[in-house]
Amino acid sequence: MNDKIKIIAFDADDTLWVNEPYFQETEKAFCALLEDYLPHHSVSQELYKTEMTNLHLYGYGVKGFMLCMIETIHRVTQGTANLRLVEEAIRLGQELLQKPIELLDGVEEVLGALKGKYRLVMATKGDLLDQERKLKKSGLQHYFHHIEIMSDKQVADYRKLLKHLDCAPENFLMLGNSIKSDVLPVLELNSHAAHIPYHTTWVHEVHEHRLEHPNFLELERISDILNHLGT
Amino acid sequence: MNDKIKIIAFDADDTLWVNEPYFQETEKAFCALLEDYLPHHSVSQELYKTEMTNLHLYGYGVKGFMLCMIETIHRVTQGTANLRLVEEAIRLGQELLQKPIELLDGVEEVLGALKGKYRLVMATKGDLLDQERKLKKSGLQHYFHHIEIMSDKQVADYRKLLKHLDCAPENFLMLGNSIKSDVLPVLELNSHAAHIPYHTTWVHEVHEHRLEHPNFLELERISDILNHLGT
Repeated sequence: MNDKIKIIAFDADDTLWVNEPYFQETEKAFCALLEDYLPHHSVSQELYKTEMTNLHLYGYGVKGFMLCMIETIHRVTQGTANLRLVEEAIRLGQELLQKPIELLDGVEEVLGALKGKYRLVMATKGDLLDQERKLKKSGLQHYFHHIEIMSDKQVADYRKLLKHLDCAPENFLMLGNSIKSDVLPVLELNSHAAHIPYHTTWVHEVHEHRLEHPNFLELERISDILNHLGT
Repeated sequence: MNDKIKIIAFDADDTLWVNEPYFQETEKAFCALLEDYLPHHSVSQELYKTEMTNLHLYGYGVKGFMLCMIETIHRVTQGTANLRLVEEAIRLGQELLQKPIELLDGVEEVLGALKGKYRLVMATKGDLLDQERKLKKSGLQHYFHHIEIMSDKQVADYRKLLKHLDCAPENFLMLGNSIKSDVLPVLELNSHAAHIPYHTTWVHEVHEHRLEHPNFLELERISDILNHLGT
């Protein structure tokens, strides 16, 4: 693979740094807010339902998540809850927006080893300002040639990215923790993709089937990519 | 001016299409929700205060505006409001996210006249998905070489944009309705800027002083730019 690849793109949340555990922590605290009305797992289901209903309007990211928590409070309590619960949900969301950035193992080592040999790109979904802030906090900015914050990661979105980077599909490698967002659409374009599983994945991103494809690599940890690239 | 300019960037909201009047309509409906607690203009002030407090966290765009309406309900009513008001604020915000796109006079004519002669860029603040959706609805996509959705429009943001476009400052012209966001930072980089006033401007974007600068054009309407470029 190594002689074809010119651009390597990295997903950010749960690939470069911790994200989903913070969301789960927030969701747990949110479910506790509503435990007088419904058991935790039912609140969690209601929240997910709200998120899926609004995804086309809000897109990905914390602000949409906050609005969905608030809407879920209204629905679950049939409008009877005290406004304090809403204030508490806003506080939880604002806290989530200000979490520290905790880099995952091997990330700096990998970026350092690949910088200069490849054009490195960060390609992530979410709120624009929030992802920019996380990148800044991470101290990883200087490794990247280009930052792409995408409203979605479907085939058409990657096609646009490749065009923007002026990159042929066979010269592009995407690394990420989501088979659905970082792997399948990339393979469909005949680009290369590597999956680095993270211990926890948002149910919306879960993919159940085993994947076999000549352009696909299943890695155990991010640093394994160095062996595959012969770096 | 016309022999130096290679890239022309257009602001979107209230430059290409109607935006602020929709926000004001929403704000008016929001103030009406709270009229049992405070007069309209005081609610409006409280909302603005909430927006400014949260701008560093939420950035620009409708989702942040929705969260600020909700927070303002809590503060203005000291937590005593019925949850129905929150539901109503969410409904107002979702309606705002789904407004039709109404192009401003002369926009299509100008873009059509400049396309092919210059590289045209759309450079706008706001929520990523929301701005993409508005562009799609507008039918203007095909005029633009590049779309930049920016978390802010300060000097550093324009510097990044120019670098990204590989454009020297003297070859860049920005058109927009906000002196603060579309003109001043652009002039500071020694690029060119044209101001097209819109009949209403968000107070956060208002600039009071008259501006004189060799790289600055004050236009009455967007189509006036064609004369200045000799097109």
